[in-house]
Amino acid sequence: MGWPTAMHLTAKGHSVAVVDNYLRRSLCRQENVEPLVDVPNLHQRTVIWESLSGSHIPVFIGDLTDWSFIEDVFRRFTPDGLVHYAEQPAAPYSMLNRTASMLTLRNNLETTANVIFAVKQFCPDAQIVKLGTMGEYGTPNIDIEEGWLDVDHKGRRQTFLFPRQAGSLYHTTKIMDTDLLWLYVRMWNLRVTDLMQGPVYGIFTDENRDHENLYSFLNYDELFGTVLNRFIVQAVAGHPLTVYGKGGQTRGYLNIVDTLNCVRLALENPAQKGKLRIFNQFTETFSVNQLADRVQKVASSFGLKAEIARIENPRKESEDHYYNPEHTGLLELGLEPHYLTDEVIAEMIEFALKHKDKIRPEQIFRKVKWDSDSN
Amino acid sequence: MGWPTAMHLTAKGHSVAVVDNYLRRSLCRQENVEPLVDVPNLHQRTVIWESLSGSHIPVFIGDLTDWSFIEDVFRRFTPDGLVHYAEQPAAPYSMLNRTASMLTLRNNLETTANVIFAVKQFCPDAQIVKLGTMGEYGTPNIDIEEGWLDVDHKGRRQTFLFPRQAGSLYHTTKIMDTDLLWLYVRMWNLRVTDLMQGPVYGIFTDENRDHENLYSFLNYDELFGTVLNRFIVQAVAGHPLTVYGKGGQTRGYLNIVDTLNCVRLALENPAQKGKLRIFNQFTETFSVNQLADRVQKVASSFGLKAEIARIENPRKESEDHYYNPEHTGLLELGLEPHYLTDEVIAEMIEFALKHKDKIRPEQIFRKVKWDSDSN
Repeated sequence: MGWPTAMHLTAKGHSVAVVDNYLRRSLCRQENVEPLVDVPNLHQRTVIWESLSGSHIPVFIGDLTDWSFIEDVFRRFTPDGLVHYAEQPAAPYSMLNRTASMLTLRNNLETTANVIFAVKQFCPDAQIVKLGTMGEYGTPNIDIEEGWLDVDHKGRRQTFLFPRQAGSLYHTTKIMDTDLLWLYVRMWNLRVTDLMQGPVYGIFTDENRDHENLYSFLNYDELFGTVLNRFIVQAVAGHPLTVYGKGGQTRGYLNIVDTLNCVRLALENPAQKGKLRIFNQFTETFSVNQLADRVQKVASSFGLKAEIARIENPRKESEDHYYNPEHTGLLELGLEPHYLTDEVIAEMIEFALKHKDKIRPEQIFRKVKWDSDSN
Repeated sequence: MGWPTAMHLTAKGHSVAVVDNYLRRSLCRQENVEPLVDVPNLHQRTVIWESLSGSHIPVFIGDLTDWSFIEDVFRRFTPDGLVHYAEQPAAPYSMLNRTASMLTLRNNLETTANVIFAVKQFCPDAQIVKLGTMGEYGTPNIDIEEGWLDVDHKGRRQTFLFPRQAGSLYHTTKIMDTDLLWLYVRMWNLRVTDLMQGPVYGIFTDENRDHENLYSFLNYDELFGTVLNRFIVQAVAGHPLTVYGKGGQTRGYLNIVDTLNCVRLALENPAQKGKLRIFNQFTETFSVNQLADRVQKVASSFGLKAEIARIENPRKESEDHYYNPEHTGLLELGLEPHYLTDEVIAEMIEFALKHKDKIRPEQIFRKVKWDSDSN
């Protein structure tokens, strides 16, 4: 998400720097998976983007868990606001084995802590926009409110952070991030927006259309690929669509274009000092079965016969549950949703067909189990 | 708490090993504070204890954040149950500066994760007894239930972990520990008891009485000393009792003897597989003002004139709040509380008087602020 966000913000007139340690690229290499289309490094991307847009984006390559690095970054580019994406982002990877789990825990907590310390020291009025995840809430049997819950109990009332209970270590580190930011909002009067994002789908944005070198990663493997992106590539590869268990697992989804707009809206309308503002960031809910059916239907119009396989669920999760999350905050800020139409699915299938020769079927599904002995 | 627990468990017939990296001793040295009475190292203590009780306690000195160390420990001593005390335990230290904060975050999360991974690998049926803290709950405006809360919301119901909102980084790392254990209880079917402990006071246990070399640390400094222990030493040193702000801050307290019994009761009556069992571990609630008044009164019977000083609160916390926490679980398991009588306070004052010459007044209060620029 970092690169498309940087392009989008500069296209809207903001001055932006990017910081990356290529963690995702490195983990993909280690696990022998790769995005459908390879992408240039960030220095190369900024050259292309500058030639197209005239906007220069400074690049800092280093590890934000290293204080001397982050200190140097904040001295050289002191922001009014920052978007914290610097986390190991994949739930299946976080459950792969002990080493992957510890990397996820350490990276996600230490980057968040260093971001907090850097903001306190260098730009205490800057807003931190942190990417949370709808997965922090899990699938409770009550409506999911937007971050907070008023609890009436034995005749008294208290507003709490909406109670969280996640289904993977990755999602749990995002709960811990929230714990950490909520502490320092109260202790140090920081301003923070937590965007509780659902799974993102799509490739194309206003900025990258027609420029493959500017696309974000499209992982279709089980470790780093999100579900709709995976189904699209599976349909094109002639691999069955891998529905885990009953397929009733329901989540909130959004188009990559909406993600960029949500992040920009949060930055342009910052939270007040001393406030943790929370938005549920998705536009529609779908069950896994609904997504599989939608992909199957649109794929058939391309002459692709996508079979749906209900396989043993490698995760531990409810496959049939209540799910009714609130999501009005970003709409009130001005978000205009791009919904999942058949045209959007068709456009993604066309893209995958164009690159069909690059699909490596062996990386589609390797059965990473949530409770395997390799943990 | 580790050493008194080990003695107590062996006295009750259990076979026990201890693991320590002397973190607290090392941090005290770094910050130039020390307990009132110096204590021998663990190897020396076990020799003394074996000569008194006949019980041998194996000692492993090393860092539990190091997987190769913890793996070696679990291979050589595979427990049926374990008590996880391996955390940086001081709230003021955790707010001292960035280095102290990062040490607290890293140590407390990585020891907990490694304990979880080790139990999964070497003894998946063993119970983890984790020391939590009542401070995880903060001071909500509703009754604090024992770990869990039934929430009725818009006509539906869900049981959640009682929502947590702590007032220091130390307490927040204990929330994160709970997040982590709750994840793996569900994913890997572990059995876990979380003891939400209030501040502990006292020095004497059935096992250490009359053996100063077996006492636990009595820190009276602002960083590592708990409030009642600090007030006792302040009264003896002729230092004003340092009440922060209005002094209405109310917490649940318990005697060190009760802590040992609680931990033993939890071990002897383990949680079921796949269950996170939570007990609120304290016996009485007091406000800071009540404790100061009690110490002042008992001190006067020794001819000590303890002045009470209401100083600017270096912490960020409510100084006047509702506080009604439940605490029946451990009583139902058989806990017989030792309450804070005047005799208990007098015994502690006698101890401090005996060692009055060792008190270093300059370490009593150094004004560690929760939001200082050194963070």
